[in-house]
Amino acid sequence: MKRQPGKGINGAGLGPGKKTRLNRILHQHGLRNGTAIFLPYDHGLEHGPRDFFDNPVVSDPAYIIRLALEGGFNGIAIQIGLAEKFYWDYAGEVPLILKLNGKTDIPSDAEALSPLHASVADAVRLGADAVGYTLYVGSPAQETDFRQLRQVREDAQRFGMPLIVWAYPRGAAIEAKGGRDSFYAVDYAARTASELGADMVKVNFPHPEKVSGVKDAYQHEFSPQQAINAVVRSANRTLVLVSGGEKAGDEAMLEKTRQSMEAGATGLIFGRNVWQREHDESIRFVARLQEILSKYPQAGAPGA
Amino acid sequence: MKRQPGKGINGAGLGPGKKTRLNRILHQHGLRNGTAIFLPYDHGLEHGPRDFFDNPVVSDPAYIIRLALEGGFNGIAIQIGLAEKFYWDYAGEVPLILKLNGKTDIPSDAEALSPLHASVADAVRLGADAVGYTLYVGSPAQETDFRQLRQVREDAQRFGMPLIVWAYPRGAAIEAKGGRDSFYAVDYAARTASELGADMVKVNFPHPEKVSGVKDAYQHEFSPQQAINAVVRSANRTLVLVSGGEKAGDEAMLEKTRQSMEAGATGLIFGRNVWQREHDESIRFVARLQEILSKYPQAGAPGA
Amino acid sequence: MKRQPGKGINGAGLGPGKKTRLNRILHQHGLRNGTAIFLPYDHGLEHGPRDFFDNPVVSDPAYIIRLALEGGFNGIAIQIGLAEKFYWDYAGEVPLILKLNGKTDIPSDAEALSPLHASVADAVRLGADAVGYTLYVGSPAQETDFRQLRQVREDAQRFGMPLIVWAYPRGAAIEAKGGRDSFYAVDYAARTASELGADMVKVNFPHPEKVSGVKDAYQHEFSPQQAINAVVRSANRTLVLVSGGEKAGDEAMLEKTRQSMEAGATGLIFGRNVWQREHDESIRFVARLQEILSKYPQAGAPGA
Amino acid sequence: MKRQPGKGINGAGLGPGKKTRLNRILHQHGLRNGTAIFLPYDHGLEHGPRDFFDNPVVSDPAYIIRLALEGGFNGIAIQIGLAEKFYWDYAGEVPLILKLNGKTDIPSDAEALSPLHASVADAVRLGADAVGYTLYVGSPAQETDFRQLRQVREDAQRFGMPLIVWAYPRGAAIEAKGGRDSFYAVDYAARTASELGADMVKVNFPHPEKVSGVKDAYQHEFSPQQAINAVVRSANRTLVLVSGGEKAGDEAMLEKTRQSMEAGATGLIFGRNVWQREHDESIRFVARLQEILSKYPQAGAPGA
Amino acid sequence: MKRQPGKGINGAGLGPGKKTRLNRILHQHGLRNGTAIFLPYDHGLEHGPRDFFDNPVVSDPAYIIRLALEGGFNGIAIQIGLAEKFYWDYAGEVPLILKLNGKTDIPSDAEALSPLHASVADAVRLGADAVGYTLYVGSPAQETDFRQLRQVREDAQRFGMPLIVWAYPRGAAIEAKGGRDSFYAVDYAARTASELGADMVKVNFPHPEKVSGVKDAYQHEFSPQQAINAVVRSANRTLVLVSGGEKAGDEAMLEKTRQSMEAGATGLIFGRNVWQREHDESIRFVARLQEILSKYPQAGAPGA
Repeated sequence: MKRQPGKGINGAGLGPGKKTRLNRILHQHGLRNGTAIFLPYDHGLEHGPRDFFDNPVVSDPAYIIRLALEGGFNGIAIQIGLAEKFYWDYAGEVPLILKLNGKTDIPSDAEALSPLHASVADAVRLGADAVGYTLYVGSPAQETDFRQLRQVREDAQRFGMPLIVWAYPRGAAIEAKGGRDSFYAVDYAARTASELGADMVKVNFPHPEKVSGVKDAYQHEFSPQQAINAVVRSANRTLVLVSGGEKAGDEAMLEKTRQSMEAGATGLIFGRNVWQREHDESIRFVARLQEILSKYPQAGAPGA
Repeated sequence: MKRQPGKGINGAGLGPGKKTRLNRILHQHGLRNGTAIFLPYDHGLEHGPRDFFDNPVVSDPAYIIRLALEGGFNGIAIQIGLAEKFYWDYAGEVPLILKLNGKTDIPSDAEALSPLHASVADAVRLGADAVGYTLYVGSPAQETDFRQLRQVREDAQRFGMPLIVWAYPRGAAIEAKGGRDSFYAVDYAARTASELGADMVKVNFPHPEKVSGVKDAYQHEFSPQQAINAVVRSANRTLVLVSGGEKAGDEAMLEKTRQSMEAGATGLIFGRNVWQREHDESIRFVARLQEILSKYPQAGAPGA
Repeated sequence: MKRQPGKGINGAGLGPGKKTRLNRILHQHGLRNGTAIFLPYDHGLEHGPRDFFDNPVVSDPAYIIRLALEGGFNGIAIQIGLAEKFYWDYAGEVPLILKLNGKTDIPSDAEALSPLHASVADAVRLGADAVGYTLYVGSPAQETDFRQLRQVREDAQRFGMPLIVWAYPRGAAIEAKGGRDSFYAVDYAARTASELGADMVKVNFPHPEKVSGVKDAYQHEFSPQQAINAVVRSANRTLVLVSGGEKAGDEAMLEKTRQSMEAGATGLIFGRNVWQREHDESIRFVARLQEILSKYPQAGAPGA
Repeated sequence: MKRQPGKGINGAGLGPGKKTRLNRILHQHGLRNGTAIFLPYDHGLEHGPRDFFDNPVVSDPAYIIRLALEGGFNGIAIQIGLAEKFYWDYAGEVPLILKLNGKTDIPSDAEALSPLHASVADAVRLGADAVGYTLYVGSPAQETDFRQLRQVREDAQRFGMPLIVWAYPRGAAIEAKGGRDSFYAVDYAARTASELGADMVKVNFPHPEKVSGVKDAYQHEFSPQQAINAVVRSANRTLVLVSGGEKAGDEAMLEKTRQSMEAGATGLIFGRNVWQREHDESIRFVARLQEILSKYPQAGAPGA
Repeated sequence: MKRQPGKGINGAGLGPGKKTRLNRILHQHGLRNGTAIFLPYDHGLEHGPRDFFDNPVVSDPAYIIRLALEGGFNGIAIQIGLAEKFYWDYAGEVPLILKLNGKTDIPSDAEALSPLHASVADAVRLGADAVGYTLYVGSPAQETDFRQLRQVREDAQRFGMPLIVWAYPRGAAIEAKGGRDSFYAVDYAARTASELGADMVKVNFPHPEKVSGVKDAYQHEFSPQQAINAVVRSANRTLVLVSGGEKAGDEAMLEKTRQSMEAGATGLIFGRNVWQREHDESIRFVARLQEILSKYPQAGAPGA
């Protein structure tokens, strides 16, 4: 299986501000080789504090930011409230990805929509290096979702701020067509983010074996590697971050990581798989991920 | 059967900016005789990557833009994300039609609406020569649809940007009245676009034999030529582009093309029928289309 | 004497809109080799109709636009009033450079300032491919001048519209320091336009022999070639257009042209030297200029 | 002497709103042959009531509007205050030209500027068919003057409202260069209005014998007919209205009228020469003017 | 002589965005110890190309940016035109300080004012880490100067963008009171920048021996060290950068550097003293400056 080429940040479409900030994230933090591991920490809003029960110290945002620093992450993704209260203490030490929308998981997901609660201007003011937006691909609420994303994209373009889209298949129609992590759904989600202007897209690892109700083209046998290859290709020049999702077995996560990087992904965005462990164990696990990423340097490095 | 006259771009209602940009599309690219073939490439959003499975190279937007250049197309129609990332490399080589709205085909079509995700100002900034808007004629969501289109039309008028309307009959009521490609539905859609301010309208080729549930006037025997003649006439000074739709037999497509041009259409907008083939075969098929269009020069040429 | 390299339009700083429009001007009109000859026609405002007395037909803007078409010019530079009334008839046939400011030569030049009378938005609406702004380098009115230019530059950046600065040394201090066409003054003017964001700059050919009152660095013997070389270098990535100024001897103009192109200039902006002659003589003179420019193809051509 | 052709209103640059309103003025009032006589009545502001002393009834705006109706004028030009108080009674009976700027003649004219006191939006609200703006060509205040005019032009374009510029040479530099009604000054003023976007321009009849201080090109012997021919040509597609100025001998005025129409002017704008007489005498004088204009029908009539 | 403490960036008044960006400049580039050497390159506008004559390669902005990279500078300070055209190629490699105002040195300096030609929003868009503003302390134009600075300060606060003030005593009154580099004038300028909201201030090294016309308090004998100590103290929490000014002897510059750092300055902003030499010599000279700065680590480093 031939490795797919990485994507880099040298496309002129990026503009100087986006290129500056992506260069900082990808080449001046973490492994500094064009790959990235982000630490997302929006679970307190998205799931509630239940995600912190097994390891209560992680309910403290300062603990998480320090973990990002110690682990050599390329950025932390948090909501406006935590950014306002906690980022100053570590300002500039680790890139900030300001998550601009979010929701609780209390009401039904059938017409999933993640409302905006912060702006690109907030991100500029806080010194963030990117903004994050959750798009629920396939949701009946897509009119509002697209309208929100359009405003974010325009502001991000105007301010030279990279836009990372959390592209999540969601809603009743998705559940009827293979579910949210089917190859079909993840592939479509990656492409949608790219078509709508994402600079990076966060996707779940695709499951090609989930074929019930999916479109014909996906009703075939695909290996996980073939599936993630296709997803990265569908995203074209949009850089791909693979999500960790719920905490799973380490070896499975490492294998997914290898496959993703082999497919041309830029890196990972791993939350629960990292911080739902004891501190030193978190650091050790990140080191194992970085060991894999170190084998996949990307274009766009200084002098490249 | 007497050929209907073409329409040209010399109506003073166009204003200098729209005339400049249409002149460029129709007389400075492609056959340069006032006809046009556009290459649409919004399928990644509208259908998902499945449309690219048979010929995976077409999932790469750069391949498509190069195909448009090699084939001598009059323009490519893409969404904002691909335009931002890929058009710079070919800026000005082939006219850009920025598609301003779009949707996934995951949720139900019963209340079809294509949300805006870009603006006419984006099109100006990117150097586009036209904007595209999908109007779902007959959809229960027409209030929002018309409100969106009104904003686009006003901006297009203010910036001198030609407005191409993808006029698609859609929604439960349409399905009950002959379906989306009945003569009745296509004819009504063409007229609606014209009444609401389109400079060009993209329609499907009308099917006069689909009469179940259509209005009385359409409950008669019409030849395909009569039907497309009527559709072009309904569009009056709005230039007509005939859509290729799903990939179909070559001879059928060529015959449709001949009938459309005979009726006074300006040209074609063919996506899957072109790029769902191997590269050289795509080029050869386009050449056959152009051979037909070369027999139908339109008014508005330099010196006309 | 080693020829200096041309500049081209492939710098990522241009953005897709500016690149599209410059590509059109430089590679889809005129010689299509990256060089340019523009026909300026703002003399009716800047000098009054007296410039038209020797050849009254040139007081008719339609004559001038046709001359630009017949002569194969890369663009015409006119004020808003003529653009509104005359460009429609030739919309898109020859690129329009909308001149955004201008003044009469009736009041004193001591505090020269060229007031804005049109906007970049007007240029977009009219289908123009560039805007022109006259900057009076060295004038005591520089505060207002810079403020006006800043607005134009921001709008041009926002709309992807190339900005051509007419960089004219002017005012009492300039007259005391070598005059408006000294090497010192022209070199400084070219650099100022570049520092303030011009995509192209129009300068007079520098006179290195005018040394009375100029800064020490210019108090040396320089050949005309050395002087124009330095001016083009001072402009760095800003493309240089050399002005014809008052009608002068043909051989002198051709020699200036050769020297300018040798220095790496992009082309010429010749008004009175072209249209203050009988029609066929104008065309013949332009052909001689083009013969020179054809030897200096620039980077940035399609496929480059 | 060959008669110069009239200009008409069929240029596409006008847009539908301007064409509608000009068609109303030129073809549905007065002689209905494309010519025009306007009745200006801004003297109460520009000179003060002294202009009304010889015939006190003319200080009553209602008298003037009735005079315009009885005399078959193509429009009255008045300031906002009189328009607000008097036009309702005759709304639509005679076209209203709302004069948007004006000044008293009390302070010095050296830096002449006519401040705005109404807007194009006021004109729309009042049902006016055109707006008038006084531009002091050659005044040192040209920066402010051009800025004001730019706003008026943009609004007029946006609202489809014809823009009539009162182009008056004025200021110390003009006095030093032949004075305000020299051929040089009037010719330059007509051109300036055209370059800055006037649809019609009001000029004084040029005096070719005033040559002291004028540019060389005007230092020759020109007949009055040659001079007015040149002025109309300088205005190109901008329609020319010749001003009556101070009351003068009837035969002289009629001769000027003949020469102006022969030159291709659209008509007259006569105030004091009309209403500084007894009522019936005013009407008789207008009839003599119309007799001349009836011999010069202009293009642009309905069906033309 | 007791060394004065450095200032660092840990004051909460900074806000997270300013702290992030200052942290990047001071601790993630150059020596990474809280000190800084900036490379200013606005001489093409402020003095004209004559500053480049001795070493013509420095007229190329790309050369200068590469010099900043090779020399390990903490930032380059350039105008908008060069930033737009050249920064993309090196985006993020070296911090960009966008200079927001500037002027030519052609007209008289008596009422010195540096007009704005770019905005803080431009800086955000380009990915800059600070903005620069030249304040002419003591100029009669201070009303306009303060109004401009107020807008910049407000925008900088809103966007979290550090504000560096070039505090230059200037104007007729300054010349009469000790001149632009007297201790009195420099001390006053440093304080003025601090009082008006500068995050950093660029000052010339003070000359305590220039006492003619200065206020009594400065009419005493002060050592250069005492003078620079006082200036740094006057700036309080505003970080101080000492300017190199015209090229001078190396030993003198190194001594000034030592004295400045001893006084608690943050670093240097050296243009002509660096780039008006041959390339390798520039690098060697910077290394000698850095050797000094390495002895003065400042607070605010990671973990501080």
